[in-house]
Order: sequence, then structure tokens, then C-alpha cells
Amino acid sequence: MTHTPVLLTPGPLTTSARTRQAMMLDWGSWDREFNTLTANLCQQLLSIVNGHASHHCVPLQGSGTFAVEAAIGTLVPRDGKVLVLVNGAYGQRLARICQVLGRAFTTFETAEDQPTTAADVQRLIRADASITHVALIHCETSTGILNPLAQIAQVVADHGKRLIIDAMSSFGALPIDAAQVPFDALIAASGKCLEGVPGMGFVFTDKTALAGAEGNSPSLALDLHDQHAYMARTGQWRFTPPTHVVAALHEALLQYHEQGGLAARHQRYANNCKSLLDGMAAIGLRSFLPAAIQAPIIVTFHAPRDPRYQFADFYERVKAKGFILYPGKLTQVETFRVGCIGCVGPHEMRAAVRAVTDALREMEVLHI
Amino acid sequence: MTHTPVLLTPGPLTTSARTRQAMMLDWGSWDREFNTLTANLCQQLLSIVNGHASHHCVPLQGSGTFAVEAAIGTLVPRDGKVLVLVNGAYGQRLARICQVLGRAFTTFETAEDQPTTAADVQRLIRADASITHVALIHCETSTGILNPLAQIAQVVADHGKRLIIDAMSSFGALPIDAAQVPFDALIAASGKCLEGVPGMGFVFTDKTALAGAEGNSPSLALDLHDQHAYMARTGQWRFTPPTHVVAALHEALLQYHEQGGLAARHQRYANNCKSLLDGMAAIGLRSFLPAAIQAPIIVTFHAPRDPRYQFADFYERVKAKGFILYPGKLTQVETFRVGCIGCVGPHEMRAAVRAVTDALREMEVLHI
Repeated sequence: MTHTPVLLTPGPLTTSARTRQAMMLDWGSWDREFNTLTANLCQQLLSIVNGHASHHCVPLQGSGTFAVEAAIGTLVPRDGKVLVLVNGAYGQRLARICQVLGRAFTTFETAEDQPTTAADVQRLIRADASITHVALIHCETSTGILNPLAQIAQVVADHGKRLIIDAMSSFGALPIDAAQVPFDALIAASGKCLEGVPGMGFVFTDKTALAGAEGNSPSLALDLHDQHAYMARTGQWRFTPPTHVVAALHEALLQYHEQGGLAARHQRYANNCKSLLDGMAAIGLRSFLPAAIQAPIIVTFHAPRDPRYQFADFYERVKAKGFILYPGKLTQVETFRVGCIGCVGPHEMRAAVRAVTDALREMEVLHI
Repeated sequence: MTHTPVLLTPGPLTTSARTRQAMMLDWGSWDREFNTLTANLCQQLLSIVNGHASHHCVPLQGSGTFAVEAAIGTLVPRDGKVLVLVNGAYGQRLARICQVLGRAFTTFETAEDQPTTAADVQRLIRADASITHVALIHCETSTGILNPLAQIAQVVADHGKRLIIDAMSSFGALPIDAAQVPFDALIAASGKCLEGVPGMGFVFTDKTALAGAEGNSPSLALDLHDQHAYMARTGQWRFTPPTHVVAALHEALLQYHEQGGLAARHQRYANNCKSLLDGMAAIGLRSFLPAAIQAPIIVTFHAPRDPRYQFADFYERVKAKGFILYPGKLTQVETFRVGCIGCVGPHEMRAAVRAVTDALREMEVLHI
């Protein structure tokens, strides 16, 4: 690349120069200093979720989906059954993982602009006594919709069921307190709201649930029980860790805390989101979701109706002005998406709106 | 870390500043420029193994072991049976993967200083008609031993069986020609002899074998058929790629070719190995393997017999002088290991021998 566009995408995203600079050292994966780095990283992550007393943090090589599959494969016993809540592509992926792993599951699907409700979950659990686990996406990146995690978690716990939360795109920016929200697993990754680079995920696992999960996993590489037990015993990762990615995430977390932790991260993203929504509304671009269920993570916009609008052309023009957008992921409605997360602030969001405005003008897109 | 020791370990290893510098950019994983980077990377990798006509290169997130598990899970059908050749910890890991995945397997184990022979393989295949696949480690990093890949591959092919090669620590430094050595899968990773950073593996898969492997994989994340099909269709990785790791490997490969490709890489490592062996022999440290079966990748040395020698103390002293060594991995004999791979040359190897010499002198280790 001859230039470095700002990524307004839901991860990988724009990182700080300091975070990237942390990758300029090579670390020995067996070395005590690297073990300390890993341990410190896990402690910092546990602090964010207030999980020290109740949960382990188990880091895992690979993308976030690897960690989601690992959580389901390790924590759902072979005779378990998962109720999967779906309102977008990532919910569908949860179901697909259960299917491939051969875990019994049932799905409950709502429209892409409809959060799952706790009342639905209660009804479904009561109707099927064989359900042992509920799995959901906190913020569904397909649209940017926020599901009511705390209420659903309460219902699940009240019925003695176990919860698996894919919090990939919300963790670190939206509050989740393990002392208030009961869960067996919460999964996120390095390259999202913590503003690290992609290459590792991590799973907060309930200590008791993980202790009882030995031998569940149908995979060696994705066995969280084994990964945790080995790390607890040796301080090391079981298999070669992505050392530079780990170092970058560690550095990103230092900045996260210096900048004010979750409250500050949430506020910055909320400001980014408002700035984006206001700016786009001013040129007539409508967001797909109503404000009440819009998480400040990624916004889906209706594509302009003008036939001169083509996403590929639009994307390239906005990119030439320094911003990388994201395609839509809806099947019924033509949309595009703009991320609010990453090492960006109001300046970048305003400049992004200007870039979008100028691109549409160049394309002579009038009917928005 | 306040200093940057040289890693004389079998990966992660010492990378060049130029390779690390390639991680200073953030890439959009959906962007055309990143797709081009990935495609170019795969083409460069295929060139090294001369596999364009016969094989696909399928990159995978995670450590090398993730890619090994993916290869076995995708390419060995559920009714297949694997003959696993073992002479060290990584061979044992192949067997463990088969076991966890529920694939039938049998092991043939030789001593850690004994290469498997083609005659053994022939005898074993003839004795068990249910064997469909043979799996082996090319260079077993537990000791540094080299197994006779070409001869074994020929026997396997002659009997109509399929071969899976873990070439993690040899690929890029020891010649393997896909037109001469028949195999269904050859697995390696970014952070080994190509001198990238750790975080991704890749599998060269026989095109016909991969085409027939749809639905074999017991995992979504580790399904190489699905990973390849998606990439062939879209140019993109199925799940978030470790963008910075990919960019670093791409840059490392440019340097690999500029420096003279495999022949030059092999020669540099062979020189490193000779320099190391000669220097250590001069102070009385004996290598575990005879020269004929010693790959120029990592050398196992017998620990000094002096009771004043303790590995932990030795390690820290050598590290303080700028070099990170590797512990031994043998159960019966006390050893330590020194890698010959990474962005290091004769200067570093001589300095490493001096550091070892000085550390042992400080420890008053006399009886070597």
C-alpha cells in the first residue's frame, strides 16, 4: 500500500502506532518474559469483565471464530443441546459450528432488525427440557444490532441453563460484568474494541464449567480445557503463540487503561457513532436500525437508491480519499457498513462523512 | 524487554527488521490489496515446493499444529486409517491428533536418534491393508533428526497410499519438490525457516485429494476444503486473517527470494549448524545426533555432567549475554537445544558459542 487508509471496518481496524510498534521485538515463546506478558494480558482482560473470582481467561491462537468453536466444543458436553439465538450471519455461524461439531442444537431466529427478547428465551427453554446451553451474539456485526444480554443471561441462569456469549465486537466497549451477568463462556478477540491486531481470541470460562470439561473437545488445537491446564502448569501456550500479536494486544491494553478503560472507550465509540449518524443523516443517508437497538460499534446504512450508485465504485472512491468501508451483509436490502471502532475519533468520523459526500457527488448520485 | 536477545529457538525465531517493519500498516481484510497480498503469498509458497501444477496452498490462522490438525481432519476420510511414524514429540502429537479426531491410526516408533526407514514403512503397509494414509515429521524438532522423506514418499505412493508430511521446521530450508515427492498434504508455518512471525500455517494439498474432501472435517474453523473453496471464490480468508502476520510473511518471502531462495537459505543454515557444532565441540559439548542424520535446523546437545550445571541458571546467563536457547525435549537424557534458523549468520553463531563458553565458566562447570 502506498498510503495508509483509516479502517472503518469491524476488525481488523485502525490501531495506534504505539500498538504496532510493540511488534518490533521478537519474543521467545518459552521465555519467562513472554510468559509474564501472557499472564499479565490475561489478568488485564479478566479485570475488564470483573471475572477474577469466577472465570479463567483462556487465550487461543487464530481468529475469533476459532475461539467460538473452541468454547462450544469444550463446554457443551457431547450429550448437550444448544439453543442458538440468531438475528444475523454470526448467529447463523454459531448454529453451523454446532452442526459441524455434531452437537444437538435448535435455532430461534428473529429478523435482522429485531433483538431477541428474554421472554422468547424463557418460552423456548420451558418448551424444550433437553436444552442445556443457550448461545447468542451480543452485538451482531451483520447489522450492528445489540441483543439484551443481561436480561437473557438472567433468564438462562434462572432456569439452570448455561450461557455462551459471542461478544466479539462488543467486548471492551460495552459493559459486561461477570459478577452480574452469569455465563459459562464469553468470547472475544484481539483485533476488535481493544484495538490490537488480529491473530488471537480469548474465552472467559466459568472456572467450574471448565474444570468439568476435560475430554469434551472433539479437537486438540481447539481444546480450551487442555489449553488452560497447560498454561496454568507451565505459564506457556500449548502450541506456538502468535508472539507479536500477543505483544501488540498487551500494549493496546496498557493504552486502554491509560485512556480511562471501558467507560472512556465506550464514550469515544458512542461519540464516533453519533458523529457518523448525524453526518450521514445530513446528506440523506439512512441507517438501517432504529437508534434504540443500534450498538456504537458498526452502523449499517441503506445504499442510495440512485442507479448510478454501485458499491464497488463507491468503495474505491472513498478509499482513495483515505477510508476503508465495509460491504453490507444483508440479503434482502442493499446496504453498506461503517465501523465506529478502532483508534479513531471525531476528526476521522467527520472526514469520513466528507469523503462519502464527495464520492457520491463525483458519482453524480442524487437520489439518496 | 529492555534488550533484544537473538532467538536460537526453532520458531518463533529472529526476524529481520524489514519483516517486522511490514507490520506497521493496518490492512482491511476485505480489501482488494490484501486479497492480492494473500494470493501473491500463496503463489510464492507454491513456487518453493514446485507445486503449482499439482497442489493448492491453503493458508490457515493459528499455529502450525492447527494446520496439521486441519490437514488430518480434512484429508483423512472418517473411515481412513493413518500409519503415524514417530521418533519424537511431534510425531507423538500427530498420533494424538488422530486419536482426538477419532481417526483410526497405528503408530510405528523408533528411538529418538533413529530415522524411520522406507523399508519399515513398506513392511508396515504390506502388513495392514486397512492403512490409507501415512503421516510423518520431516525434521523432528525434538532432536533435530531428519527422516528420509523422499524414500518414504516413494514407498507410500508405490503402494497406492496417501502421505501427510509435517514439514514445519524444514520447509523453505530443505528441498522438497512436489513433482518428485508425492504427497496429499505438506504442512508448514509462517514463523519457521521462511523467517516470518508466528500466527499462521499453510497446507499444500493435492488438488484432487482436496476436491474429494468436502464434508470430511469435524471442525468448521479447521476445514481446509471450506477454507480453500471460499478463498478461491472470493479471494478472501473465510474468517478474520492475522493481517499483520500475513504482511510480515509476504515481506519475509520477498527477502527469501532476493537472498537466493532455498539453496541460499539451506546453505546459510548449514553454515550456522557447522559453526555451532564446531564451536561447541571445541569446548567439549557433544551433539546428541550423529552428523549423517542431523538436519541443519536445530541441534540437541548433551548437558554437561558437572553437578554445578543447571539448565535454568545456564539459560539465564546465556540470555543475559544476548542469546535465547531452548530446553531439551528428551525424557531419558538431559540435553539442551540450539536453533540454527532465523535471521542469523556465522557472526551470531560464533557469539552464541562464546556466550555458552562464558556462562559455563561463570558457573564453574568444569566436567563437560
